[in-house]
Amino acid sequence: MDKDAQKRKFVAEFGNLVAELQQVARDYKMPQEAVDWLTKNLNYNTLGGKLNRGLSVIDSYCILKNKKLNDLSDTEYSKVALLGWSVELLQAYFLVADDMMDQSKTRRGQPCWYLQEGVGNIAINDSFMLEGAIYILLKKHFRQEPYYLDLLDLFHEVTFQTVLGQLLDLHTAEEEHVDLSKFSLEKHSCIIIFKTAYYSFYLPVALAMYMCGINSDEDLKQVKDILIPLGEYFQIQDDYLDCFGTPEQIGKIGTDIKDNKCSWVVNQALLKAKPEQRKLLDDNYGKKDDDSEARVKQLFADMGISKIYEDYENKIVTKLREKIEQVDESRGLKKEVLSAFLAKICKRSK
Amino acid sequence: MDKDAQKRKFVAEFGNLVAELQQVARDYKMPQEAVDWLTKNLNYNTLGGKLNRGLSVIDSYCILKNKKLNDLSDTEYSKVALLGWSVELLQAYFLVADDMMDQSKTRRGQPCWYLQEGVGNIAINDSFMLEGAIYILLKKHFRQEPYYLDLLDLFHEVTFQTVLGQLLDLHTAEEEHVDLSKFSLEKHSCIIIFKTAYYSFYLPVALAMYMCGINSDEDLKQVKDILIPLGEYFQIQDDYLDCFGTPEQIGKIGTDIKDNKCSWVVNQALLKAKPEQRKLLDDNYGKKDDDSEARVKQLFADMGISKIYEDYENKIVTKLREKIEQVDESRGLKKEVLSAFLAKICKRSK
Repeated sequence: MDKDAQKRKFVAEFGNLVAELQQVARDYKMPQEAVDWLTKNLNYNTLGGKLNRGLSVIDSYCILKNKKLNDLSDTEYSKVALLGWSVELLQAYFLVADDMMDQSKTRRGQPCWYLQEGVGNIAINDSFMLEGAIYILLKKHFRQEPYYLDLLDLFHEVTFQTVLGQLLDLHTAEEEHVDLSKFSLEKHSCIIIFKTAYYSFYLPVALAMYMCGINSDEDLKQVKDILIPLGEYFQIQDDYLDCFGTPEQIGKIGTDIKDNKCSWVVNQALLKAKPEQRKLLDDNYGKKDDDSEARVKQLFADMGISKIYEDYENKIVTKLREKIEQVDESRGLKKEVLSAFLAKICKRSK
Repeated sequence: MDKDAQKRKFVAEFGNLVAELQQVARDYKMPQEAVDWLTKNLNYNTLGGKLNRGLSVIDSYCILKNKKLNDLSDTEYSKVALLGWSVELLQAYFLVADDMMDQSKTRRGQPCWYLQEGVGNIAINDSFMLEGAIYILLKKHFRQEPYYLDLLDLFHEVTFQTVLGQLLDLHTAEEEHVDLSKFSLEKHSCIIIFKTAYYSFYLPVALAMYMCGINSDEDLKQVKDILIPLGEYFQIQDDYLDCFGTPEQIGKIGTDIKDNKCSWVVNQALLKAKPEQRKLLDDNYGKKDDDSEARVKQLFADMGISKIYEDYENKIVTKLREKIEQVDESRGLKKEVLSAFLAKICKRSK
């Protein structure tokens, strides 16, 4: 099954989950208008993205089970797809709120949910609903499984980690108030690991592992020790491409410099900036005009940030490959789960 | 121990929980500024209220165990108090968000959290943190208990119910757009049961029951069948007092009429309003001026709403007393848990 067909199959499953949640609301005797709002909220905010995180639960499960997608029974597929959609619902929960906090305008090529007619601050409650839906669905489909409790603990832990990452991000880079002395590579690393890596990289694989009964602390630690640096690398790559990638490569126009983002790129520059270079950054970073942005980009070029990035990338990819090679597969974990992830990300940078 | 001493003991316990959450953040290598923010968020939004919900977990536990508060061991007290604080954290999660959605100005006699210097929309993430804290604490203290899973399922269910209640409330009474045809007693009942009764009445007692091992579906149904109508009565009383109580009685000046609230009072009036009375309501309800409010209040007086309320109260109190009398105590449930709740609320109305 090709990538597009896989995605279609996964999206079709979401329709069933929406129907289940509608039924929950109806069983509670909620009026039709509430059921309709729930439906719109679910569809608008969970669909429309690349669904990489959700799909990677299914990919990881197939690798661990040594099965092709077509070999899964319908009930087996539905269960693992539900775990995938739970990750997507968690992401939707965060994105609806992030967009409000960042005052973003668009998300996935459409207006942000809170900017939709009649939504506004109600979007806060809608984000709560997206998170709440995860646990309603997990209970319905996994309550009888021996690993149900592990799933709940995992979602709770990763949710709290992501919230802490978001907290740190919000307090490090206020858009209004540029203060580069708040930035550091250490803080950058902490932000991206907590805000992104846990829920985007560790969570999908850990969910697939629990469903396969691969649940020892050792195995969970093995994947975490690889997927967290991998997620960090992914985000550093994202930061790099925002500044140095072409719009064709990244599908959007990068705005990190104008938005005063605590990006890997500016942190590298801060690390080795001479006083006059630091002054240029202080004067121009986070400014909304094109000229300031161009001056910052020129400085990054002069400082050879691209070379630093290439060196970093070569080093981290080598290191991750070595670590994957050393993975102990004796309890059922497969190196391929991790190398498949790495391959997707390496490809992206080319 | 008198009420004030009980409250002081309970509040002292919260300090330990904050310290535990700080340690979680430190173990994650969060910078001090993030730990400080977490602390401020927890203290500002969880303390300062009447703490009735949290304290009622402890009261219910003592009744079920047939113990006095002083008879509880320190570890026993800490555990049941943690369940109480979990209810208060859940409430804090909702209130921070509700205040943003309602654009409220004050909460518990101080400015709403989102209006504090430097907070604003970051309050959304702070509300997430308050909810997340519940599960971090529950895991730390209850993971080994046979009823841990029941606690999680209960919190998830009640959270989703409250979110649905809030959804219905937000869509029934938009402050900007007055449309009394959206109101009905049925919808009012659904809103208050879901938005308030589950988490304020059922949740505290059910938590105490689980901790006491009283967990049969029959017993949970017995308390739900009494505490949900009791919570409904409490909210109807609240609506009544907002309009008919003196500021001395209710400790604030009621604003439901001006705020276009879908209150029990207006719903009763709508039920029996003659065409010209309905027109008066359409023209004056939800208006911000004192004259309109006075006209609505006069109409409520003319229509004898106070008498209708008194009849309702007598009827529901009698009915609840009868239901409590019929409670089956054979599996360890005690009628007193329920009658203690009812006594608190009856007293309030005097």
